[in-house]
Amino acid sequence: MTTVVDRLAIVGLGLIGSSIARGARTYGLAREIVAIDRDAGVIERVKALGLAEVASSEASAVAGADLVILCVPVGAIGDVAAQIAPHLKPGAVVSDVGSVKAAVVAAVTPHLSEDNPFVPAHPVAGTEYSGPDSGFATLFSNRWCILTPPEGADPAAVERVQGLWQGLGAIVETMTPEHHDLVLAITSHVPHLIAYNIVGTAADLEAVTQSEVIKFSAGGFRDFTRIAASDPTMWRDIFLTNREAVLEMLGRFNEDLSALSRAIRWGDGEALHDLFTRTRAIRRGIVAMGQETAEPDFGRARNAAAPAAKQS
Amino acid sequence: MTTVVDRLAIVGLGLIGSSIARGARTYGLAREIVAIDRDAGVIERVKALGLAEVASSEASAVAGADLVILCVPVGAIGDVAAQIAPHLKPGAVVSDVGSVKAAVVAAVTPHLSEDNPFVPAHPVAGTEYSGPDSGFATLFSNRWCILTPPEGADPAAVERVQGLWQGLGAIVETMTPEHHDLVLAITSHVPHLIAYNIVGTAADLEAVTQSEVIKFSAGGFRDFTRIAASDPTMWRDIFLTNREAVLEMLGRFNEDLSALSRAIRWGDGEALHDLFTRTRAIRRGIVAMGQETAEPDFGRARNAAAPAAKQS
Repeated sequence: MTTVVDRLAIVGLGLIGSSIARGARTYGLAREIVAIDRDAGVIERVKALGLAEVASSEASAVAGADLVILCVPVGAIGDVAAQIAPHLKPGAVVSDVGSVKAAVVAAVTPHLSEDNPFVPAHPVAGTEYSGPDSGFATLFSNRWCILTPPEGADPAAVERVQGLWQGLGAIVETMTPEHHDLVLAITSHVPHLIAYNIVGTAADLEAVTQSEVIKFSAGGFRDFTRIAASDPTMWRDIFLTNREAVLEMLGRFNEDLSALSRAIRWGDGEALHDLFTRTRAIRRGIVAMGQETAEPDFGRARNAAAPAAKQS
Repeated sequence: MTTVVDRLAIVGLGLIGSSIARGARTYGLAREIVAIDRDAGVIERVKALGLAEVASSEASAVAGADLVILCVPVGAIGDVAAQIAPHLKPGAVVSDVGSVKAAVVAAVTPHLSEDNPFVPAHPVAGTEYSGPDSGFATLFSNRWCILTPPEGADPAAVERVQGLWQGLGAIVETMTPEHHDLVLAITSHVPHLIAYNIVGTAADLEAVTQSEVIKFSAGGFRDFTRIAASDPTMWRDIFLTNREAVLEMLGRFNEDLSALSRAIRWGDGEALHDLFTRTRAIRRGIVAMGQETAEPDFGRARNAAAPAAKQS
């Protein structure tokens, strides 16, 4: 790998920010990596883990940086952009990792001068864990990273951001912020919403105890709890800032669910069987494209212990 | 392990039936294991894999068996029970593995004589793969198996079924068929329904291509495709035979989803954050009870390859 930037500043060292720091160091993508976070506890962990040089302020973190990546919840990003903007050197490129793009562009762009191009990015990768301890260098390996540069963006600025993500192992694709928000609404935001929702529904039942929900979760429910364990602040901000696309996709989901519910009520086995057959093909496509393991049960089954007779 | 039954007959050698055959042999639970399946292709695989002695008919499979386990889709189970009933020896216990219990009891019981107690069972375990090649001996290890014996059932018959499941590594719990169907509606059936549904919704969009859905599925969507790849016939039958409980739980899910949707529309960030915080606790309970891995991303992330720069 060749160095992509001289001085890389990472603002926010959660799962994504800390994974960028680890990856940039592991793959030699930056000569210097500087980190800043508003949470003193996070800063302590960054120091203890030795993830990056820790700056004393947002201003000093971004001073002299060639590339500044904002890795904060999208609800906080406008404020952070306003704080750092006066301290950017001319030509410094600003990017982010937000899961929503149109709202981020609207929040960040007004604070930046023409000397500091904003090249928004969204690496479609993550785990259900949060914070600097949970990151790892290979998080972005073979995952897509979507760039949404404005029309007429400086090609060199786009290339700098693209180079970083490719160096981290990601596959880069470019689209408009609006299209990004629609695509992610169905591939990420609505899935999280319905996962959060069913876990909440199960927790609130009276006829079924929480202990029963937990015990018998291997029937399918437990799969949903993984994404319903994602960071609450990050996800609150996503739903508040991608409202229209989420509600539109949720509307489609609801229409289809009503039809499915009707098929169950009227005993239309053929309609059910047809859908259940069709949906298998999509997973095969995801596995074929290297975005999912073909191992049964995500590979969990492979870890099953040898049985020992147990009494309930 | 001690032998639980002398002659065990397994009718239907899919994922579950073939896993019972493998486990019963591995852990020495039966002196003799006999298999029968209506699908000639399955029979060929059972022979090739050497999973069990293959009978030439359902009648000869169950003749002389002490325990007969019906591992067929719940929609076919009444018919299978009618076929085997005349050939059962007095005292032979009949059981099943169906994901629905009240409908199975209603379908099977009328065909059996008083000499052949029916002790319904449901091992809450599985993968998204089907067929005799996909089974494995440890599938039931540390998973719950629910028994729903009728009131006044012969304790020795219940013990025989319980002994088999404990020998396979499962933890046995007993409840009524009706309660089982309600519990599984929320922990398994509705999760499958909404997973099938969202995969269908995503496949049918015009604004987002199928290729985009596949590429960007790591944002959460791909998790749902696993259970939406489950066996279509099995799942059609589950929804048709557990209709009331599924529609009731789906009603609760929909109410909650409407409230969540309203919170998004009106920008009620506090309501969103509250729910998203609550749902984390449920996953911790599932992990603590050994029903889920604590590894990030189900352990998938651990398998990430080292990055190589790629072009889209």
